[in-house]
Amino acid sequence: MKVGIVGLGLIGGSLGLDLRSQGIKVFGVSRRHRTCELAELGNVVDAASTKLNFLSAADIIFICTPLTAIAPTVEQLIPYLKPDTILTDVGSVKESIVESCSRLWANFVGGHPMAGTAEQGIAAARRGLFAGTPYVLAAAETSPKPAVEEVATIARSLGATVYTCSPAVHDRAVALISHLPLLVSAGLIETCQGEANSEILKLAQQLASSGFRDTSRVGGGNPELGVEIARHNRTHLLQSLYQYRQTLDRAIAQIEAEDWTTLAQDLKASQVARPAFLQPHPTQNNHCP
Amino acid sequence: MKVGIVGLGLIGGSLGLDLRSQGIKVFGVSRRHRTCELAELGNVVDAASTKLNFLSAADIIFICTPLTAIAPTVEQLIPYLKPDTILTDVGSVKESIVESCSRLWANFVGGHPMAGTAEQGIAAARRGLFAGTPYVLAAAETSPKPAVEEVATIARSLGATVYTCSPAVHDRAVALISHLPLLVSAGLIETCQGEANSEILKLAQQLASSGFRDTSRVGGGNPELGVEIARHNRTHLLQSLYQYRQTLDRAIAQIEAEDWTTLAQDLKASQVARPAFLQPHPTQNNHCP
Repeated sequence: MKVGIVGLGLIGGSLGLDLRSQGIKVFGVSRRHRTCELAELGNVVDAASTKLNFLSAADIIFICTPLTAIAPTVEQLIPYLKPDTILTDVGSVKESIVESCSRLWANFVGGHPMAGTAEQGIAAARRGLFAGTPYVLAAAETSPKPAVEEVATIARSLGATVYTCSPAVHDRAVALISHLPLLVSAGLIETCQGEANSEILKLAQQLASSGFRDTSRVGGGNPELGVEIARHNRTHLLQSLYQYRQTLDRAIAQIEAEDWTTLAQDLKASQVARPAFLQPHPTQNNHCP
Repeated sequence: MKVGIVGLGLIGGSLGLDLRSQGIKVFGVSRRHRTCELAELGNVVDAASTKLNFLSAADIIFICTPLTAIAPTVEQLIPYLKPDTILTDVGSVKESIVESCSRLWANFVGGHPMAGTAEQGIAAARRGLFAGTPYVLAAAETSPKPAVEEVATIARSLGATVYTCSPAVHDRAVALISHLPLLVSAGLIETCQGEANSEILKLAQQLASSGFRDTSRVGGGNPELGVEIARHNRTHLLQSLYQYRQTLDRAIAQIEAEDWTTLAQDLKASQVARPAFLQPHPTQNNHCP
């Protein structure tokens, strides 16, 4: 099997390292010469190029570009593909991507490996990035089963736990547990920073500790990522935000009414609910006999 | 100097350990016999009792009980105090506490050591808990300067950084950076758990990772603490919640209008603002010559 990777950043690079360690031939494409050089020097790929026609022999191609570049990349790849080449992506939003890409190339499988670090770029690539992490396959109804199975087999070989669902279910789930936290967290920083009384603002900055640090972490991240997510998962994110606003309004009403019994019940329910969202993902090694 | 401590939990117990290590005589009071035994066995105090009259010889008494018990404890202590005994508390809300306690005992100084762990009780007490943490003195306008200076000297001897402000400024600042995050975070869990589609809820639980974990941490904590905070800092917390709701509404409006430029500006502003809230507190050791 020959694997192609377009986009040699954290995800694409780490994928190359893991697949090569399994003895699979990996060919990479990056827009930048320097990244191609680094990928070859770092044994991330067997060979790299800035041209997409470099991947004409690939049996499966992972598109590891930013969200906005995924569909255009598929379009540009088509002239060079074998009829049965499998295309898959690693974008964090699936409905719009799967819809446009499946229309362009029937043998397309939407994917979302939920691995990552705060770092970006090929320098951050490392072996084992996907071990013990979820890898979602959000295929279209029209996606050929063998293609889905092929991507699932590779994902499991990386040690990831594979989940299969529709693109819409994926986007709704990540809107709740990944995209909503980002907006909720950014809003906390904005509210604190917006304090008009400078004595209070300064004291707030001095007194903030682990509670503020943790709650504000994802909101203080890369603004481009936040906008990309909001743009591509707009409908599901808005739905989550509307539900969040209702929850917030309920808490405000309870505090206004000094209804401590109901507030205590709701806080208790949150405490009880949280652990179900924090289950570990056992590392799988299905490529090992 | 003889120090009294009422309430031998995490804060009271850790205070005892630190003060005794400086050679100060420490007398403790707990409602429970078993806690008194543990405090003596663990060298947290020189001696402990379940009776408040045990502290009649103390020059300064730290009240380390839950918020609701602080003013009643002051009231019960009064018959046993020397005329110049200093009373101080460690409650996380100051305006209501300082108002009621200063009226009961003029030589009262409101305090808030912002140290803590997820653990509670005397078993969690440890030396050095306050080193490198903020210790707020929120005195009333009527608080005698020498009493404030005395508590500040002790706080600095624990390695804490002392901040002095009015009770209202304290309550407004902690509403922003400590109490608002708790409600914002609990609302996130409640919203996710409230997902009506069971397939989406299950997938959300499976896919949630570090972003959800960090943003939901303080909201998934002790419900009693959340209610106690909301009850005692109600006005300032509501003000923060109203401002947070406005911030959230702005973000929602931007996403509805697909105004990515303004959303990007606001997310960038949050990214830029966050580090000012995360400055370390240098450990002070002002009791060392």
